[in-house]
Amino acid sequence: MVDDRSRLPIGMFDSGVGGLTVARAVIDLLPHEDIIYLGDTQRCPYGPRPHDEVRRFALEIMDHLVSQGVKLLVIACNSAASAVFEEARQRYDVSVLSVIEPGVRAAIAATRNRRIGLIGTVATVTSGSYDQALAATKANMELVSQACPRFVEFVEHNETNSEAVFDAAEEYLAPLKAAGVDTVILGCTHYPLLSGVIQYVMGEEVVLISSAEATANEVFAELKNSDLLNRSEDIGKHRFIATSEEGMFSELGELLLGPAFSGIEYRPWSDRTKA
Amino acid sequence: MVDDRSRLPIGMFDSGVGGLTVARAVIDLLPHEDIIYLGDTQRCPYGPRPHDEVRRFALEIMDHLVSQGVKLLVIACNSAASAVFEEARQRYDVSVLSVIEPGVRAAIAATRNRRIGLIGTVATVTSGSYDQALAATKANMELVSQACPRFVEFVEHNETNSEAVFDAAEEYLAPLKAAGVDTVILGCTHYPLLSGVIQYVMGEEVVLISSAEATANEVFAELKNSDLLNRSEDIGKHRFIATSEEGMFSELGELLLGPAFSGIEYRPWSDRTKA
Repeated sequence: MVDDRSRLPIGMFDSGVGGLTVARAVIDLLPHEDIIYLGDTQRCPYGPRPHDEVRRFALEIMDHLVSQGVKLLVIACNSAASAVFEEARQRYDVSVLSVIEPGVRAAIAATRNRRIGLIGTVATVTSGSYDQALAATKANMELVSQACPRFVEFVEHNETNSEAVFDAAEEYLAPLKAAGVDTVILGCTHYPLLSGVIQYVMGEEVVLISSAEATANEVFAELKNSDLLNRSEDIGKHRFIATSEEGMFSELGELLLGPAFSGIEYRPWSDRTKA
Repeated sequence: MVDDRSRLPIGMFDSGVGGLTVARAVIDLLPHEDIIYLGDTQRCPYGPRPHDEVRRFALEIMDHLVSQGVKLLVIACNSAASAVFEEARQRYDVSVLSVIEPGVRAAIAATRNRRIGLIGTVATVTSGSYDQALAATKANMELVSQACPRFVEFVEHNETNSEAVFDAAEEYLAPLKAAGVDTVILGCTHYPLLSGVIQYVMGEEVVLISSAEATANEVFAELKNSDLLNRSEDIGKHRFIATSEEGMFSELGELLLGPAFSGIEYRPWSDRTKA
């Protein structure tokens, strides 16, 4: 029997644009799902704000999304997840997923030597939320964390292969290499756009875990297990809501959500000499 | 010193739309690179064609791309890679990468128990090209291969979470589960769109290797190592060329290249009661 709630959208939010990498991973796996994404650009970033303030903002947003009608909530923001995940799971009737636990579980599955690296913003790393999530799994593994303060800025300036990016990556990642981690969690929603540099610096024998993709896999499994997959044959509708009107959301959004498929040319093979 | 060739596009091709998942992974990691993608939709699929014919088609296309001026060739098609990769590496002055070897190397890095699964089309699996690529690495690992004939059709009908997809996935993947593989190579460029189902059926402890992402990482490393990264600050231009004019390339292209970032709404947080 199909649950009527299956037609409701998935609600997602982040302090800004970063969570769009999570939205995109979800859209990839679940093209028939409707999505409401709220980027709280007006109050971004959350990282430097006091815990109680982030908690309040996040609950406000989730209350709002739930009042609109959603079948699942995804906290696509490391700071908010760290501040409010457990409380949110108690507070709402719908399931709540965050970006932290899926990344940790995927890393536990992937590591061969039980030494996992974590990179993120200063706020995420100092929050200890990944350490706690790993401890909660009772897996006996080592987590080596490293803040990469300039990485978000690089992504937001669309600077992903300059010498400065390579230099910063070499510096930030040196302790992870020295510790011999064989798996690295990209613990910030912006970082999938730097995975070329990060993989290059870490070496191809190291497995990178995108929290965005790991979270999308858990969204898929959660909807399947609770019989809430949208069985519509139509492509889902995607609403992207920002709380402040500025170019950044739109420009960065295109970068983070992925390239547009445009400028298609049709050329029968026999015409190839016309270039 | 910047090599002038660094401004040239990356040339990629596939028998059809599937290679767009590779194009997209490359665009994600290398947003400043220009790309020419040729989908030979007129003669698609290559899989059932004789080896010599696929070889001839692929060389024609690569000759064409090289004559247009490219700095790197990517064979984003398993059938073509299997037929012509070694020959192409000899034939052209520019580097040639295929989707096969990067996926194999990433799987070797990721496996913990040295048992790797490979899923692909009937043509890819029976070609033995992944077995050969694995043997060439001299890694002492087992490869368990399984053809998944209906998976491409499911993707092309945008059917990614129906009961039929789950049933097919359960059936196709049972031998891999029975063999205890801990890593699975998605050996077909369409399969990243089914990774939700595949991960769900295999279980979260199994690592999926997207050949698209693995290939993009090698493109990144190859350009970096040969000092051919495009240092432009502009977003790269992407040309998508199809050899026959039909809706499928455009419709499926959007699906495979990723969602459009459109329909953005700006709502100051104070307006939220207006829904």
